[in-house]
Amino acid sequence: MTMTSPSTATISAATLDLLRTVTTGTVTTMLLKKGIRHAWMKGAMPFGFTGKRIVGPAFTLRFVPVREDLATPASWLNPISTRSAIEAMPEGCICVADAMGVTGAGIFGDILCMRMVKRKVAALITDGVMRDKHGVLGTGLPVWCQGVAAPASVNMLTFVGWNEPIGCGGSAIFPDDIIVADDDGAVVIPRDLVEFVAHEGAEHELMESWLVQEVEKGERLPGLYPPNDENKKRYEAWKKSR
Amino acid sequence: MTMTSPSTATISAATLDLLRTVTTGTVTTMLLKKGIRHAWMKGAMPFGFTGKRIVGPAFTLRFVPVREDLATPASWLNPISTRSAIEAMPEGCICVADAMGVTGAGIFGDILCMRMVKRKVAALITDGVMRDKHGVLGTGLPVWCQGVAAPASVNMLTFVGWNEPIGCGGSAIFPDDIIVADDDGAVVIPRDLVEFVAHEGAEHELMESWLVQEVEKGERLPGLYPPNDENKKRYEAWKKSR
Amino acid sequence: MTMTSPSTATISAATLDLLRTVTTGTVTTMLLKKGIRHAWMKGAMPFGFTGKRIVGPAFTLRFVPVREDLATPASWLNPISTRSAIEAMPEGCICVADAMGVTGAGIFGDILCMRMVKRKVAALITDGVMRDKHGVLGTGLPVWCQGVAAPASVNMLTFVGWNEPIGCGGSAIFPDDIIVADDDGAVVIPRDLVEFVAHEGAEHELMESWLVQEVEKGERLPGLYPPNDENKKRYEAWKKSR
Amino acid sequence: MTMTSPSTATISAATLDLLRTVTTGTVTTMLLKKGIRHAWMKGAMPFGFTGKRIVGPAFTLRFVPVREDLATPASWLNPISTRSAIEAMPEGCICVADAMGVTGAGIFGDILCMRMVKRKVAALITDGVMRDKHGVLGTGLPVWCQGVAAPASVNMLTFVGWNEPIGCGGSAIFPDDIIVADDDGAVVIPRDLVEFVAHEGAEHELMESWLVQEVEKGERLPGLYPPNDENKKRYEAWKKSR
Amino acid sequence: MTMTSPSTATISAATLDLLRTVTTGTVTTMLLKKGIRHAWMKGAMPFGFTGKRIVGPAFTLRFVPVREDLATPASWLNPISTRSAIEAMPEGCICVADAMGVTGAGIFGDILCMRMVKRKVAALITDGVMRDKHGVLGTGLPVWCQGVAAPASVNMLTFVGWNEPIGCGGSAIFPDDIIVADDDGAVVIPRDLVEFVAHEGAEHELMESWLVQEVEKGERLPGLYPPNDENKKRYEAWKKSR
Amino acid sequence: MTMTSPSTATISAATLDLLRTVTTGTVTTMLLKKGIRHAWMKGAMPFGFTGKRIVGPAFTLRFVPVREDLATPASWLNPISTRSAIEAMPEGCICVADAMGVTGAGIFGDILCMRMVKRKVAALITDGVMRDKHGVLGTGLPVWCQGVAAPASVNMLTFVGWNEPIGCGGSAIFPDDIIVADDDGAVVIPRDLVEFVAHEGAEHELMESWLVQEVEKGERLPGLYPPNDENKKRYEAWKKSR
Repeated sequence: MTMTSPSTATISAATLDLLRTVTTGTVTTMLLKKGIRHAWMKGAMPFGFTGKRIVGPAFTLRFVPVREDLATPASWLNPISTRSAIEAMPEGCICVADAMGVTGAGIFGDILCMRMVKRKVAALITDGVMRDKHGVLGTGLPVWCQGVAAPASVNMLTFVGWNEPIGCGGSAIFPDDIIVADDDGAVVIPRDLVEFVAHEGAEHELMESWLVQEVEKGERLPGLYPPNDENKKRYEAWKKSR
Repeated sequence: MTMTSPSTATISAATLDLLRTVTTGTVTTMLLKKGIRHAWMKGAMPFGFTGKRIVGPAFTLRFVPVREDLATPASWLNPISTRSAIEAMPEGCICVADAMGVTGAGIFGDILCMRMVKRKVAALITDGVMRDKHGVLGTGLPVWCQGVAAPASVNMLTFVGWNEPIGCGGSAIFPDDIIVADDDGAVVIPRDLVEFVAHEGAEHELMESWLVQEVEKGERLPGLYPPNDENKKRYEAWKKSR
Repeated sequence: MTMTSPSTATISAATLDLLRTVTTGTVTTMLLKKGIRHAWMKGAMPFGFTGKRIVGPAFTLRFVPVREDLATPASWLNPISTRSAIEAMPEGCICVADAMGVTGAGIFGDILCMRMVKRKVAALITDGVMRDKHGVLGTGLPVWCQGVAAPASVNMLTFVGWNEPIGCGGSAIFPDDIIVADDDGAVVIPRDLVEFVAHEGAEHELMESWLVQEVEKGERLPGLYPPNDENKKRYEAWKKSR
Repeated sequence: MTMTSPSTATISAATLDLLRTVTTGTVTTMLLKKGIRHAWMKGAMPFGFTGKRIVGPAFTLRFVPVREDLATPASWLNPISTRSAIEAMPEGCICVADAMGVTGAGIFGDILCMRMVKRKVAALITDGVMRDKHGVLGTGLPVWCQGVAAPASVNMLTFVGWNEPIGCGGSAIFPDDIIVADDDGAVVIPRDLVEFVAHEGAEHELMESWLVQEVEKGERLPGLYPPNDENKKRYEAWKKSR
Repeated sequence: MTMTSPSTATISAATLDLLRTVTTGTVTTMLLKKGIRHAWMKGAMPFGFTGKRIVGPAFTLRFVPVREDLATPASWLNPISTRSAIEAMPEGCICVADAMGVTGAGIFGDILCMRMVKRKVAALITDGVMRDKHGVLGTGLPVWCQGVAAPASVNMLTFVGWNEPIGCGGSAIFPDDIIVADDDGAVVIPRDLVEFVAHEGAEHELMESWLVQEVEKGERLPGLYPPNDENKKRYEAWKKSR
Repeated sequence: MTMTSPSTATISAATLDLLRTVTTGTVTTMLLKKGIRHAWMKGAMPFGFTGKRIVGPAFTLRFVPVREDLATPASWLNPISTRSAIEAMPEGCICVADAMGVTGAGIFGDILCMRMVKRKVAALITDGVMRDKHGVLGTGLPVWCQGVAAPASVNMLTFVGWNEPIGCGGSAIFPDDIIVADDDGAVVIPRDLVEFVAHEGAEHELMESWLVQEVEKGERLPGLYPPNDENKKRYEAWKKSR
């Protein structure tokens, strides 16, 4: 008996496009306004690249600890395997894998990543690690993870299913939650809050760009960031004048 | 899409009775003979008692990290809640809860434990902690856990379902696997291996009782434990003479 | 430049007396209603006793890591030393020591604890450990800590001051915040929230006592805990009938 | 090529007897006077008893991580096994086992402990855990460890030798170093420093007994502990008057 | 009541210049000669650059754990805020922030770093992490930290003050202690020891440069490093001949 | 009394050459076929380079925790020192150092690495860290480690010997075991299994190269990886046709 996603809100392409202009840092600040402090996935950092931001709905994978009679290369022939999970991934999804933070076994290598690229998966995010670093980088799949290990997943992990609620890096992820990942890591937005985060976040980015200009000019921080009433007016004036 | 239990082998009451004579230490040694090194649940230790051994099939609970809009006291009204899970527990089962090793929020307190006693649940095992220590001990429910914390589960955990495969203390647990717990902690036996573990384990216990007598008499360890051919013969003779 | 306590609200003796009837578990649940999830001090557990509840205002101590030229037995002669801090403690206060979770050096031994008893300090709480277990227990001072170590504080810690804001076990403590400690550990209540927690908490304890009776009678959990409208009415009726 | 013990100083029985009057806390303070801050073995705590102090020379055991083809029950038949090591232990020694802090496999169970008792081994100290808690307590061997686990050592550890330099709980132990263990844990004294620690330590214990009396009388701490010149004179007078 | 800096020794510009020729590795070795083993700040590593060495006096910041009612974006308006602290930083100082090793919330982002550059702060050092990696690197402020996280400080930390004694990465830092940071991390020199470390350190660097030449020529290590009497003479001769 | 290497099997140069074509990832998979799950050394990652694979026999070093009277710069003059160990290293060996995972003291700096290059040591692998990052990279010695720290080994470690069995990153290493290290880290092959791993591993690499081609063409994963009977036939046909 498993909980289903707590929201099935429709999210427009325009909202997702707007969200692509919002940094993960700003996303966490907008979520804090709603009382949510657990959205950033500890350990999931860019794997060998910089300067990318990816946005999309979560497709979850779940691992439990190794059981030696089940976690074997032979298990990859079973209907419930990472292979079948990949074939179920829709175009544009972001695969989020709960590896329980295990760093001694790589969940995926080059062959699986290459297949995900073929299926147009947007990115792979995990609180665990990858294996076959050179090969994975070669596929071009954007990956956020803790690093790399030589052993395969079956050395320490048993794959048990997909599109269930999971934990990843200390945050709860439900299928179809919206994921944003960039140089500061990966964050999850509960589906119901995506409209709020996208619009408030875009406004926040605008204000920060004005703040940067002010600090560049030599303004002092107190009263400016966050702005007091006078500075709020100056900011509004600047916005109109753009 | 979730993996179901890999075995539905029938286990007789006689086998379970035999297993009640086998220590958790011996269970792990028997499983090692089958190549299984991950069966003991780290962190799950007897909570305020000593000298009990409990055996029964696993009923699993699963938590993921807190999501502040979902993990609230109000969530306990939902159909997927720890309350509903308890009402689904069959008599004699052992409840095994995956709390991801979190030690800052107690998964259950006295009221839920009292209801589990009413439902004749045999024991509760978790890699997390309890709350309301005094009250929980008062219910008499045998609990294996890491200790106690004042905050409720919703402070750090979101409950997401029951009778799925879980991890607990670094071991994989499938529903209806057989659990054995005593003063040395709690172990899981994959359902297919229960017959083997019960019978080989009981024999192993017998041999250890003979070894203890021999060491008491002053015998040296090399050649005795494990026994060489001569000592194997002496043991067999002793067995017949009992 | 240090932040002072964010509240200097007056708290009546009656409120503190009411708070003595509220468990630490209930305190954390009341604080959660106000959005506060960090109040329980991880690692601070009863040291060799059970069944006590202590309530009082915080008097804080602060340690930083060892600096070998400063953290020496000679440092105990300085005006800023743990000795002077103890002489500054008011009757009835609860001493809360930020030991940064260090478990390899005991912050206090029997002589300092004995002096705290003479000064009528109500309790000592730390995320570190004690030394001289036998002697400390002998003084009768109620202590919440992680355990015991033989080395003195100067082996790993430098004492730097008292009655500053500190961290203890992952929670922020300001001087004169109200501390509650019992078998489930120790929690801090921001001074502004003490009235709310005491009154709502006492009502919550009453309802839990009714719930226990209902479960004892065999009631099912869903609808009862938390109570639906019907059960709320039954509870109100019971309250009036007492 | 292994380092041998850096000292072979002779230690009289009288010195060891004097050391039996010195707490582990005082031992660490005396060692600090000689610049030694790493002597207490983290994790090695009394296993199911209180009020004992044991003193004796170290006999070391060394484990490395499991290698599945070597760490098997069959390995116990090898000449380099824990069994052979026990037969090599001299009467009165304290066995100190480097288990690398591993808490998922018990290094010894009841049969090996019983044999150590027969060989008049004074105590067993480890930064790991035991197995078969009930049986081990039954042998009466004083054990300092981190707790208990059901699996045997071969589940996670490979035994590789005895009487080599080891690490235990973050301290370096050389064979024949002197070990002191009591309620505050276990400490190692480099052989060259034993005379100093025993004599200075006994004097320190005496002064602490006087301090306790003074605090009992209501004396303030500053100037008393540590004593200023006036209090040093009072202490000396007290000593003479005994 | 807080301890003030234990030294106010004057340090000449010439000494600081000499110190700029000394590696952090050599600084730790010179401090070890004075019995100081805790000077390197664990976790504070160069953030996106290589080949820099920065020297200057410490300006400290202190955080405690989050308290949800205090750690909010609104708190940045308070007089005791990170904003005010930055305005108090003198030119040439090195800001050292005690983030308690927290890696889930970035203490500063691009706007605050930009203001620090405007104020001619020499560097920022923390045992925590930054946020807004791209923007921070763009400011050119040299930062030593554990990495990056998307959430702001208020997600996990409460700022409580500046220029107090702090811990950072396991070392104690007092205001105006001298900090040296390079590719091997960041170290603190107690103010009283700066003259010693600068002069002995510079000599040590010279000897190491000679050693490198000798090893390049094929000399064996024993007797050379550290040098025996013969090699000491050879080194002295080389020094004179330069 | 120390265990000697469990195998002295002769390994041909041809086998080592074949092994140079096998990734560390494949090595761990081949070892898993033999029941060995502990071969990858956690923490030992390439230090400032990419794209290298090194193969050779292990020469082990062993450290225990610091003992302040022994772990001093003066200790480097002793016959049992890291200096003497380096002079004992044979050409082509891979030095594997058990630093107990300590990250606060660098085991070696530039001078020792330079000498190892002169002695034609193939690589240095440790679960600890290096010091003098710039200098070490300058020597060109391939190093796998956890990173860098300024303090020297004597700050936290005591060197006790060489060519004994050790633990490194959670794996057991015996002298002359064969080590393979590349971008995915470092693994150990028990000497008896080298022939098997080299030959089976090379075949496995070939099959993976075919799999990559198939996935590139758009093949689905189930049935392909691992291959079912039909795909096994296709693979065999491809092998013949090369």
